Amino acid sequence: MMRYSDIVGPPAFPTFEPAERLLMGPGPSPIYPSVLQSLAKPTLGHLDPQFIKMMDEVKQMTQYAFQTSYPLTFIVSAPGSAGMETAFVNLVEPGEKVIVCRNGVFGGRMVENVLRCGGIPVIIDQEWGKPVDPDSLEITLKANPDTKIVAFVHAETSTGAASDAQLICEIATKYHCLTIVDSVTGLGGIPLFTEKWNIDAIYSGSQKCLSCIPGLSPVAFSPRAAEKIKNRKSKVQSWFLDLNLVMAYWEDGLQAGQRAYHHTAPVNSLYALHEALRLLCQEGLENAWNRHREMHLLLLEGLQDLGFTFLVDEPFRLPQLNAVFLPSGIENEANLRKKLLLEHQLEVGAGLGALSGKIWRIGLMGYGANKENVEQCLNAIKKVI
Amino acid sequence: MMRYSDIVGPPAFPTFEPAERLLMGPGPSPIYPSVLQSLAKPTLGHLDPQFIKMMDEVKQMTQYAFQTSYPLTFIVSAPGSAGMETAFVNLVEPGEKVIVCRNGVFGGRMVENVLRCGGIPVIIDQEWGKPVDPDSLEITLKANPDTKIVAFVHAETSTGAASDAQLICEIATKYHCLTIVDSVTGLGGIPLFTEKWNIDAIYSGSQKCLSCIPGLSPVAFSPRAAEKIKNRKSKVQSWFLDLNLVMAYWEDGLQAGQRAYHHTAPVNSLYALHEALRLLCQEGLENAWNRHREMHLLLLEGLQDLGFTFLVDEPFRLPQLNAVFLPSGIENEANLRKKLLLEHQLEVGAGLGALSGKIWRIGLMGYGANKENVEQCLNAIKKVI
Repeated sequence: MMRYSDIVGPPAFPTFEPAERLLMGPGPSPIYPSVLQSLAKPTLGHLDPQFIKMMDEVKQMTQYAFQTSYPLTFIVSAPGSAGMETAFVNLVEPGEKVIVCRNGVFGGRMVENVLRCGGIPVIIDQEWGKPVDPDSLEITLKANPDTKIVAFVHAETSTGAASDAQLICEIATKYHCLTIVDSVTGLGGIPLFTEKWNIDAIYSGSQKCLSCIPGLSPVAFSPRAAEKIKNRKSKVQSWFLDLNLVMAYWEDGLQAGQRAYHHTAPVNSLYALHEALRLLCQEGLENAWNRHREMHLLLLEGLQDLGFTFLVDEPFRLPQLNAVFLPSGIENEANLRKKLLLEHQLEVGAGLGALSGKIWRIGLMGYGANKENVEQCLNAIKKVI
Repeated sequence: MMRYSDIVGPPAFPTFEPAERLLMGPGPSPIYPSVLQSLAKPTLGHLDPQFIKMMDEVKQMTQYAFQTSYPLTFIVSAPGSAGMETAFVNLVEPGEKVIVCRNGVFGGRMVENVLRCGGIPVIIDQEWGKPVDPDSLEITLKANPDTKIVAFVHAETSTGAASDAQLICEIATKYHCLTIVDSVTGLGGIPLFTEKWNIDAIYSGSQKCLSCIPGLSPVAFSPRAAEKIKNRKSKVQSWFLDLNLVMAYWEDGLQAGQRAYHHTAPVNSLYALHEALRLLCQEGLENAWNRHREMHLLLLEGLQDLGFTFLVDEPFRLPQLNAVFLPSGIENEANLRKKLLLEHQLEVGAGLGALSGKIWRIGLMGYGANKENVEQCLNAIKKVI
């Protein structure tokens, strides 16, 4: 028995027992019980043929969720921010001009990503809470004919504003640009047709309208995008996110034994995503989109009765993320949120960036978008305000 | 009810039911039952005070596991490869010279990382299966006095070789270099004293000797490293892994409400790591190290009786990763591994890179390092060879 004199003693903590909260913030969202259960299933090796088969199913279901047949559809082994970075580090080459339509926090992150890739961002700033303006994009594209990529957020998680992704991509394509679309909060909650709309790179998150645990980022890249990645002049600056390497692990049609090992996949988290996608397939995208819209209208009615007003104008509101100003006269929103959390087990989201302290973001995402939750939420808010 | 004419129908898959395999490859390793169970606990928001408190406990237990009091100790929300990238993108500035001691696949990845950060790698190549040679390092440091960083692998997952991290760091420090150490397979399996050995950046993986699910990377950075990161001349090229941003979320002493949102943490996976670290603290590092060593000796005896020989010389063998040549006369090792997996539910690892087709890698990691597993493994191998 070896002894090590210099060892520092261990801390002793009890097993962690999280409370049961009703998650109605901007995500994570309430998780399907069978998704949580699937996490506890026995771990397989990441090159086990059973696991590889499951990955293929995850891929097919992700293609359905994104409404695309792009072969380069897969799951980044990290949260949505890493999905965003995957799109930018692979598609932006140093010196390339990238137009970013910025109407919230996540558009701002896109600019950060362009800069860190050595790209030249051209920023179209929009008031927060407004959708991306297609006319401004067209004017900017005319003035910058050397633009290679147009990037924007489909569903701004910081403001609850939806943008017309179809129209924006149409304009970008007219000017021979690739498109990068953030649909972290959009996927599964509002209509999205990745392939029909000509989206070249799209990324989402597992913890929003898919109602899966946080930590994974579904992504899809068009053949046009894949071609650009294969023919890059410079190496992708991230080894972990280099699609030239990741492709070999997720690639179509390879035999299990031939898959190239890249990194150890987050096996159990992928079980959970498999189950969450399975439930989405069972319900069907149309039904899910309609359910989000109906529950939003119910929540909206109740919130307006209580004196809340919406940040976003009617046609651009995301049903799954309701950004609202508190009734006039109410101060110290942070205390109210704390009360909701600790006394009513209800989590609603704070404002981000410029909207911090000014709005609440009430999520109705995936499994969470149901009547009971809307009622429970309204009742709790009624009690604290 | 809105209808969308263009929608493509969903695939229909049954719930995924993974087999129960005995994982004795290079990781993922067998998971403690209570760790798997903890995954299925209710998801909290990533800014929930309960969750923040749990993160603090994870941090303290990770400091214990690494044997360090470095305040910048935390969990990267992605697999070990992303932990590696975190170390390099934050510490290497463009144009800086980095010595990489390469004695296996993961040393090779370090070189890739240096290149992608714009650093200048100086490679010391060592025969695979041998430990890093301190003398070669000293000679190379003398010849390259402008070197800023020395990087090497403590426990090479591709060969099963341990290197003398203490001595290598001592030499590097003498030449005023920072050290980056890969202990993905080392942490929890062999003695490791991060602070006493003067390691400036260390990263590991959740799925090896911690016996947690794959997908997380514990890391620790010395105050000296943190200082360098804060005073970088250039921005960190990765937004997702930029410690200047991540620090604000994991930082010590901040109140829950003041934590800066960076990205959505993988909440449930962190429950699992909390539980795995808790069990390590309960057992104690010394006991865990000794247990790995004892089980290795038991396995070694059995394998040698069957005619297996070890790739690595005796003093440098990792107890938790046994790289062995098959008994002479045995061909088509891939078929044998398949048979072990499908007929005996036993996973052992293949060789990587230059050792592909030549060796097996038999893991005895964390929870998996026990007598029953050693016996079950030897019995199964006996039956197939």
